[in-house]
Amino acid sequence: MSKKLKTGVIGLGRIGQIHLSNLMHHMPDAEVIIASDVMEESHAFAYNLGVKTVTTDAYEVINHPDVEAIIICSPTPFHVPYTVAAAIQKKHVFCEKPLDVTIEAIQAAEKAVEDNGVKLMLGFNRRFDANFSNVRSLVEANKIGDPHILRITSRDPAPPPVEYLKISGGIFLDMSIHDFDMARYIVGSEVKEVFVKGDALIHPEIKEFGDIDTAVIVLTFENGAIGVIDNSRKAVYGYDQRLEIFGSKGMAKAENNTSDTLVRFDSDGGHISLPLHFFLERYETAYRTCLKSFIDCVLNDTPSPVNAHDGLMATAIGIAAMKSLTEGRIVQINEILELSHV
Amino acid sequence: MSKKLKTGVIGLGRIGQIHLSNLMHHMPDAEVIIASDVMEESHAFAYNLGVKTVTTDAYEVINHPDVEAIIICSPTPFHVPYTVAAAIQKKHVFCEKPLDVTIEAIQAAEKAVEDNGVKLMLGFNRRFDANFSNVRSLVEANKIGDPHILRITSRDPAPPPVEYLKISGGIFLDMSIHDFDMARYIVGSEVKEVFVKGDALIHPEIKEFGDIDTAVIVLTFENGAIGVIDNSRKAVYGYDQRLEIFGSKGMAKAENNTSDTLVRFDSDGGHISLPLHFFLERYETAYRTCLKSFIDCVLNDTPSPVNAHDGLMATAIGIAAMKSLTEGRIVQINEILELSHV
Amino acid sequence: MSKKLKTGVIGLGRIGQIHLSNLMHHMPDAEVIIASDVMEESHAFAYNLGVKTVTTDAYEVINHPDVEAIIICSPTPFHVPYTVAAAIQKKHVFCEKPLDVTIEAIQAAEKAVEDNGVKLMLGFNRRFDANFSNVRSLVEANKIGDPHILRITSRDPAPPPVEYLKISGGIFLDMSIHDFDMARYIVGSEVKEVFVKGDALIHPEIKEFGDIDTAVIVLTFENGAIGVIDNSRKAVYGYDQRLEIFGSKGMAKAENNTSDTLVRFDSDGGHISLPLHFFLERYETAYRTCLKSFIDCVLNDTPSPVNAHDGLMATAIGIAAMKSLTEGRIVQINEILELSHV
Amino acid sequence: MSKKLKTGVIGLGRIGQIHLSNLMHHMPDAEVIIASDVMEESHAFAYNLGVKTVTTDAYEVINHPDVEAIIICSPTPFHVPYTVAAAIQKKHVFCEKPLDVTIEAIQAAEKAVEDNGVKLMLGFNRRFDANFSNVRSLVEANKIGDPHILRITSRDPAPPPVEYLKISGGIFLDMSIHDFDMARYIVGSEVKEVFVKGDALIHPEIKEFGDIDTAVIVLTFENGAIGVIDNSRKAVYGYDQRLEIFGSKGMAKAENNTSDTLVRFDSDGGHISLPLHFFLERYETAYRTCLKSFIDCVLNDTPSPVNAHDGLMATAIGIAAMKSLTEGRIVQINEILELSHV
Repeated sequence: MSKKLKTGVIGLGRIGQIHLSNLMHHMPDAEVIIASDVMEESHAFAYNLGVKTVTTDAYEVINHPDVEAIIICSPTPFHVPYTVAAAIQKKHVFCEKPLDVTIEAIQAAEKAVEDNGVKLMLGFNRRFDANFSNVRSLVEANKIGDPHILRITSRDPAPPPVEYLKISGGIFLDMSIHDFDMARYIVGSEVKEVFVKGDALIHPEIKEFGDIDTAVIVLTFENGAIGVIDNSRKAVYGYDQRLEIFGSKGMAKAENNTSDTLVRFDSDGGHISLPLHFFLERYETAYRTCLKSFIDCVLNDTPSPVNAHDGLMATAIGIAAMKSLTEGRIVQINEILELSHV
Repeated sequence: MSKKLKTGVIGLGRIGQIHLSNLMHHMPDAEVIIASDVMEESHAFAYNLGVKTVTTDAYEVINHPDVEAIIICSPTPFHVPYTVAAAIQKKHVFCEKPLDVTIEAIQAAEKAVEDNGVKLMLGFNRRFDANFSNVRSLVEANKIGDPHILRITSRDPAPPPVEYLKISGGIFLDMSIHDFDMARYIVGSEVKEVFVKGDALIHPEIKEFGDIDTAVIVLTFENGAIGVIDNSRKAVYGYDQRLEIFGSKGMAKAENNTSDTLVRFDSDGGHISLPLHFFLERYETAYRTCLKSFIDCVLNDTPSPVNAHDGLMATAIGIAAMKSLTEGRIVQINEILELSHV
Repeated sequence: MSKKLKTGVIGLGRIGQIHLSNLMHHMPDAEVIIASDVMEESHAFAYNLGVKTVTTDAYEVINHPDVEAIIICSPTPFHVPYTVAAAIQKKHVFCEKPLDVTIEAIQAAEKAVEDNGVKLMLGFNRRFDANFSNVRSLVEANKIGDPHILRITSRDPAPPPVEYLKISGGIFLDMSIHDFDMARYIVGSEVKEVFVKGDALIHPEIKEFGDIDTAVIVLTFENGAIGVIDNSRKAVYGYDQRLEIFGSKGMAKAENNTSDTLVRFDSDGGHISLPLHFFLERYETAYRTCLKSFIDCVLNDTPSPVNAHDGLMATAIGIAAMKSLTEGRIVQINEILELSHV
Repeated sequence: MSKKLKTGVIGLGRIGQIHLSNLMHHMPDAEVIIASDVMEESHAFAYNLGVKTVTTDAYEVINHPDVEAIIICSPTPFHVPYTVAAAIQKKHVFCEKPLDVTIEAIQAAEKAVEDNGVKLMLGFNRRFDANFSNVRSLVEANKIGDPHILRITSRDPAPPPVEYLKISGGIFLDMSIHDFDMARYIVGSEVKEVFVKGDALIHPEIKEFGDIDTAVIVLTFENGAIGVIDNSRKAVYGYDQRLEIFGSKGMAKAENNTSDTLVRFDSDGGHISLPLHFFLERYETAYRTCLKSFIDCVLNDTPSPVNAHDGLMATAIGIAAMKSLTEGRIVQINEILELSHV
């Protein structure tokens, strides 16, 4: 292994641009050999950052002889094909979430990665947010005791266009999947059961294609803890990302981040700042820390901090959530896994 | 009606003493004619406060010719009998919660009260806590918009003795019932469905008699809002009483009250004060405001702010919650009401 | 000494009414024998609370054979005459602040009290506010280390009428005197020097009679700490009463109290509640605790928690502050004390 | 003027490295032609970032024909000589603070800059901190009304070594000078008078060479506002950087920044995070925004946001503060300026 990790980036959309900028500016232990995107218009972004080679062909990135690790930021349907191809070429893989929306495809990727002895890390960047990783550290340090109740509030500032929602895979795999991963990460135990109550309170028309925009999700963990997630596609005051873990020894909660710490008082009341607007602002540092930890795990040959199993479980919870909503009952995660012969 | 409301107090236990002290010291529009308790040891408390007549016989209070309103602080099984007896005597009634643990008994009380044209108010004192009543005012003033998500955290500092738990009626009718009333009060809509996930994580032995000490309760409201309550019998850091309402126009939340506003920093970190220890400290003012609003509603002949229907619905939600826990499914409130031919 | 302290109250103005209500309702260890006020219109207030005897003659209170302790709430010029008269009658004295605006009169009161072996306590009620007394406890417990910097913010919601300001004795003896006492209390050391910078920024016309409405006051303490007080007669957002002590081991600060803990977010920002409006709301409990500690110190024969020396020093700092403002220089407290041959 | 500003950096110490990194990574509108430092060991840092030419001779930077703007990060005594030399070469200058410790030298720099029609910006980076610039915006938008009282708390986590303190120029020119600039910036008015009370409470030995480590500084502004700064060289809980402006319409305050928003409760109390440790962490973004605004002002030919006059006034206040401490009296800024025939 070289001292600097030689990477190739597939996909130059919004997330791909974030990862590429971070690689060029903030990762002294990595370099970018090549990048790709099917849209030629996006190539200028990479050239301007100093990438020498940019192509429309993802496989040129995967097969490039100097490339040691692939950063996959393509649309979801290509995540598994590119992961498998990269693994066969003995390249390490960092892949955006979700790895896939089916259990079977995730398992295929997992097998390819294991068979070829390469590392796979998923971009569940919120685990690397200082607020949440510090809550996790408190749980690990037994400052909370046995976890009893987990609460996650996760609300977007505004819903995507209805056209996007139609192809999004539904709120659970598109939006809540981050919270499912967060729940497993914070509690440190597998989810056993899911129950969902939800509705389309913001855009009633999305019910037509079976989606919702407001949800309360109850999770039961193998260690006995109970979790509850509340999701909304539209919080008019901004991106609301908080969580709280309660246990036998105490409680810890992470509040929102704001652009400043101002408090202003006039005769009408006291006024404080809104949460940071959306994920680009809130998780700017987390994206960087997440990618850096992939580079570190490859260079130091340590286990991937977020592996295929994590991707599989997050997707399984998402599928179970949709089933619970549709059937109006508790769904066991094992039902989902067994359907797929896991 | 006299200018000062002439009251009689039944029951001089912990809550009875709070109401009696408030009547003697803080209610210039009321006076106490007589008080009763079956335990003679408790009579000194009333005499010391200046009550002229104290008896062991509750019916002496109810039947006293000068008494216009009865404050019932007896054990729960006597709430309805005393309410009915008082109504027949054309006396107004303030009764501690729950009015009863069965729908049928509550309906009997409701009928007696209506037939005799007297007022009945239930002691859901938390509605009169400044934090919560101010949140309700924001909802009424349409500052939140259409309510989408309600979150209530309600955790006690320490569980009662297991011996008490055996006869408590279960966590839902003993503890969560306050939260059920709060949910209806804040959202301003009836609860339609209940789903519960719970466990005995603090005292596993209470499972033997069907009780739990940790619960997550999902409520569906007729106006479409979804609510979630989390309960624990033991928060080692004190009495945790918070809530949050989220809607189309924004969000409002009420945090805990503390004994002081201190923030201390040393090299180990920043330190802030614990929540007020338990309900006597947290709801000291709410108890007073609650009782005062009963006196006002009688003297001014305005509707009771918390009536028999409120008691009936809180109890019905509690019964539904227990059924949901036992049967592992969503329970409709109508199932409970129809069983009782409401 | 009787088990219940027999008191007489002189003065039924705003503060007198607070003390009398507290005595009647919240002091089981005290009773009120007699009250007085020169204005007959104010007598009804006392009669309504249940006081048996009310007079226009303060000396009837002082000389009443059953009275053991006098609560003096008269205008300031009568504080010392009544204190001396009560001491001669061997009555204990609780007196509102300031004891007097001259050092000589305070010394006369101190001498009378000592010669007659009675207790004198001054109504510096803010020492009994939970926020401030808890900060003091942290200093005493050496959680702050050696005190280095004290900051007090003390701002009124609105200035009194200009007519009152003309006879108020000036901002330092009328308003800042509370802060001078607080400074000595928190730091636990005597003030050595005073420097003032101030102006009439709200009502420029009060400069004509030598007063100001905005001040920054620097205090030097004998233990080396430096303090700074900022005062304003008009904070449009309410009564602003905060302080902070900084030392070698850390820092503690007390924030304002509010009517509720609400936080509301809409698309315009976050909104929190104003500080409690003024001293009656903010110090309601402190008034009670203050008076109770007087009754306790008499009944238990313990030292007065706020004695004549405390009154003398607060007044001396006030006189020094005025001198510093007028002469534009640092003034030593000893200058003031020596002028009075203390 | 080229589209990208061609810069040269003088000095590769701690601050020089920050500015150089920002230029290389975060300033798409600037490029670095050359850098210099007398210490050859520091050159590797610049080479590693991709700077092509690094020299030991500052004048090679100033005289480089392609360089349009000089970033001066040398020790203070060289600030004015390099500024003057650059101005003569018609190069724009960004210079670290303080411009100099004497009024005369600052005036010389100011004259050179004006005579040669180039821009000079001083690195008072705190003006570009989001907390403080947002407070300033509130003042400018008249949300505070007429400013009455300004409070600045500025405390370092730990003092520099005593050896450094001996040559630091004293607390006022080394540390408080940032607060003097902040005071003028927030209030938007010139300082007229200074009064200081201070002591060496942390390291008494520094009194020997006339320095102190704890100070309370009172400022009077031309618009009538009064300001107070409290400084300490050692806050054991970290870098304490807060301020508050109070005026006729309300108040705004900026609190510290922390690494996370965690609140943890256990049976001992509530626990929150410390302020960010020191200026590198707290002002990381402000350094970047500050430098960017220099580049923008040169490229767009707009006035320098922090000019020589700002440097002159901050230094004059520092000199006045030292005089006030030594002489124990109020010092007029005009005394200082007139001594220098300004």
